[in-house]
Amino acid sequence: MTSLAEQTRWMDATEQAALVGSGQVKPAELVEAAIERIEAIDPALNAVTVRWFDEARDTTPAAGPFRGVPFLIKDLFAAYRGQPLTNGNKALKEAGVRSTVDSTLVSRFRAAGLLTLGRTNSSEFGTLPTTEPLAWGPTHNPWDPRRSPGGSSGGAAAAVAAGLVPFAHASDGGGSIRIPASCCGLVGLKPSQGRITAGPQRDESNLGVELCVSRTVRDTAALLDAVRGPGVGDTVIAPAPTRSYLDEVGADPGRLRIGLLDNPSLAAPENLAGARATARLLESLGHHVEESFPAALADPQWTRRFMALWSTNRGVNLAQLAEQLGREATPDDVEPVNWALAEQARRYTAIDYAQALAATALLRRAVQQWWADGFDLLLTPTVAEPPLPLGTIANDPAEPMAPMMRSGQFVPFTPSFNTTGQPAISLPMHWTETGLPIGVQLVAAYGREDVLLRVASQLEAAQPWSDRRPTI
Amino acid sequence: MTSLAEQTRWMDATEQAALVGSGQVKPAELVEAAIERIEAIDPALNAVTVRWFDEARDTTPAAGPFRGVPFLIKDLFAAYRGQPLTNGNKALKEAGVRSTVDSTLVSRFRAAGLLTLGRTNSSEFGTLPTTEPLAWGPTHNPWDPRRSPGGSSGGAAAAVAAGLVPFAHASDGGGSIRIPASCCGLVGLKPSQGRITAGPQRDESNLGVELCVSRTVRDTAALLDAVRGPGVGDTVIAPAPTRSYLDEVGADPGRLRIGLLDNPSLAAPENLAGARATARLLESLGHHVEESFPAALADPQWTRRFMALWSTNRGVNLAQLAEQLGREATPDDVEPVNWALAEQARRYTAIDYAQALAATALLRRAVQQWWADGFDLLLTPTVAEPPLPLGTIANDPAEPMAPMMRSGQFVPFTPSFNTTGQPAISLPMHWTETGLPIGVQLVAAYGREDVLLRVASQLEAAQPWSDRRPTI
Repeated sequence: MTSLAEQTRWMDATEQAALVGSGQVKPAELVEAAIERIEAIDPALNAVTVRWFDEARDTTPAAGPFRGVPFLIKDLFAAYRGQPLTNGNKALKEAGVRSTVDSTLVSRFRAAGLLTLGRTNSSEFGTLPTTEPLAWGPTHNPWDPRRSPGGSSGGAAAAVAAGLVPFAHASDGGGSIRIPASCCGLVGLKPSQGRITAGPQRDESNLGVELCVSRTVRDTAALLDAVRGPGVGDTVIAPAPTRSYLDEVGADPGRLRIGLLDNPSLAAPENLAGARATARLLESLGHHVEESFPAALADPQWTRRFMALWSTNRGVNLAQLAEQLGREATPDDVEPVNWALAEQARRYTAIDYAQALAATALLRRAVQQWWADGFDLLLTPTVAEPPLPLGTIANDPAEPMAPMMRSGQFVPFTPSFNTTGQPAISLPMHWTETGLPIGVQLVAAYGREDVLLRVASQLEAAQPWSDRRPTI
Repeated sequence: MTSLAEQTRWMDATEQAALVGSGQVKPAELVEAAIERIEAIDPALNAVTVRWFDEARDTTPAAGPFRGVPFLIKDLFAAYRGQPLTNGNKALKEAGVRSTVDSTLVSRFRAAGLLTLGRTNSSEFGTLPTTEPLAWGPTHNPWDPRRSPGGSSGGAAAAVAAGLVPFAHASDGGGSIRIPASCCGLVGLKPSQGRITAGPQRDESNLGVELCVSRTVRDTAALLDAVRGPGVGDTVIAPAPTRSYLDEVGADPGRLRIGLLDNPSLAAPENLAGARATARLLESLGHHVEESFPAALADPQWTRRFMALWSTNRGVNLAQLAEQLGREATPDDVEPVNWALAEQARRYTAIDYAQALAATALLRRAVQQWWADGFDLLLTPTVAEPPLPLGTIANDPAEPMAPMMRSGQFVPFTPSFNTTGQPAISLPMHWTETGLPIGVQLVAAYGREDVLLRVASQLEAAQPWSDRRPTI
């Protein structure tokens, strides 16, 4: 690689933008450096599945805070005018369908000055917490290529962890930002529901939210500043922050009351150890940590309600797929797990679904009451196990729901906060003896990304992770 | 009636609260005056169906802005601890089910100092825009007892229009605040979705919102100040106002750009005349009025989407009814129209419903774009006809959907803004030659109740309606 590709490889987006801002480097040079890294390193990763390098070369970046910084967008629902969008699905890949408009978030990425080079791999429709879609093949974890980077934003996480780009777009409907952040040693903030518009084609009342995975807390904070806010017609709108999120980085979080959820029946020893070590670190920083969590999280209805919503979303995805293909979708068009989920959804009535939504609202209130009663943060392992060997969560035509069941074991801690709409962040606070990253999750009250970013930057300063780099 | 019952009959809530505040009148005296009026006048109205006078007499009001002011709560979904709640349904009436908790809004009414005397009549489950439930019989319009007060908050509107109480709780899932306000010559503000929590038992993502019907703009503004705001676990939260709503009353609205929707194929001449006369008045006040409305309102999908949501809500209501009764609900338990709607809902799948929600979001964005493009207000007739003779919208076992069809003709202008979540107000701006009230509807951008209250108070000052009183 050229020296600029090497020199900028581990710089975060803030630092790369500063190089452009001071005139030391041109946007075109940063873009070439990123293209060079992708071409050199991605063959071992399979993270960047769709590439539009020439268009990026031809684009003059907007004068935003990230002018000229190279970027990647996840291959899931995020429409980018003129470019393919496959949602990890082979029928859409083969049909070569291209988007006719930008999503509002994509247009905000443009306005922030980012130069997008292509798309990162995602599990089909974002269903599974690994990134091994049949359409594009598996993405490899930069920390151990035999292992999964997690999912569904596994392509984004692998690309950022390997230093291809400083940060990358990601989305989270059940943990899909936080899970790969945990598996790849990154910062993964799932914003509050309604913090960023999902318009114009989708609405913000579903489970999914979008932002990025990054290597530094300040990159996540500054990107959130750049793209947050509602769009026309939104009704789920998170209360606006009182100051910029970047101002939270380095700000004193005060003494926080933190509950620790470290149930040994839910997670492997390494993952529990990460949460417990972080609890001790937080105590050493002056916070109060106690064993406590919202009792409603243990409600056995929770999984059933989430699955009703999750499978219905898949049913909607299949109906949209048929629309995009201009014909009925068949079992050959989608992975067995998604076909099975949509079949399951077809057995629910509208009334079932409306009742699931209403019951979900009650669970949401019950969970959030724990914060209202005085806790600032919940601390959990992000996922239940170290990064899984590729193939662990795999489609199986004979047992199509098997990967969902296995996923449930792997990610018991993340989906609840999609249902509640609360912001949650995964931070790379722990490492196995063999050097695999283990994330911890912090969950704040609805709308309180500010609290998460303050404590995240405090933890980043107390136990920096920037020197840890995969050898790939 | 005693002189106090007469003297306070036409005082608004603000004035009654001032009497208490200055020590001229005791809360108990105001309550007795209201009880006296109810007992004297309600036999001709059938507006106040459930009464708990003795409990009100025994209650010390909270030290809120409406300390000691008598109040009534609609018999629909608004749980009041220890009191019956029938939702206009005869099976619940017969079962005598009582609520075990207050809704959050009811607890805020208490905290505002209001003294609730009982419940007002509603159509069953709020389905029909008239108030003639089989469970409780018809409510009569104080302006002409042979006519309907509209619905579903017709009991509340009749009670306020007849001077029984100064204002009363009302709710609006398709126009149920605005329609009876129009039919009874009152102010009826439907707040933005998420302006007031629907917790703890319901969530704010459904079509319905709550507040009141009142005789003065200031009463509505002050009550909204007292009860607005989210509850724990809400995610649909309207952006907070920058100052109190009471401060908007009398504030200069500036020069507003207003679109007039007065399609002659949709409304009777009297109702069109009301909207047009109001347009001229607004122009004389310095506003710019032009013939314009959001094109998406004419989308033929609109009614179908609304009906999918509306009928599914009825299906959910029937499932809840079964839960409350502890047995399956049968056709004998509910009105034919609601049974038919629930049957219709049973034919929709979860995927249909999720798609209806998603399509609804797109319609919502398309409609709201008209405001984003520069309009401040849409002006329409509130309803399409003068107050209807009782029996016009009637249950018919032979044709159970007939009252829905007739309702569609009567209320073409209100349901869209439940779907979009926008705030809308009905104001008593016009009267037929025979003295029947005709309302006009003003619709603002999402979250902009402030604009509605400023212009409403300007219209109230320019063309006061407080001297118009029914003869009942």
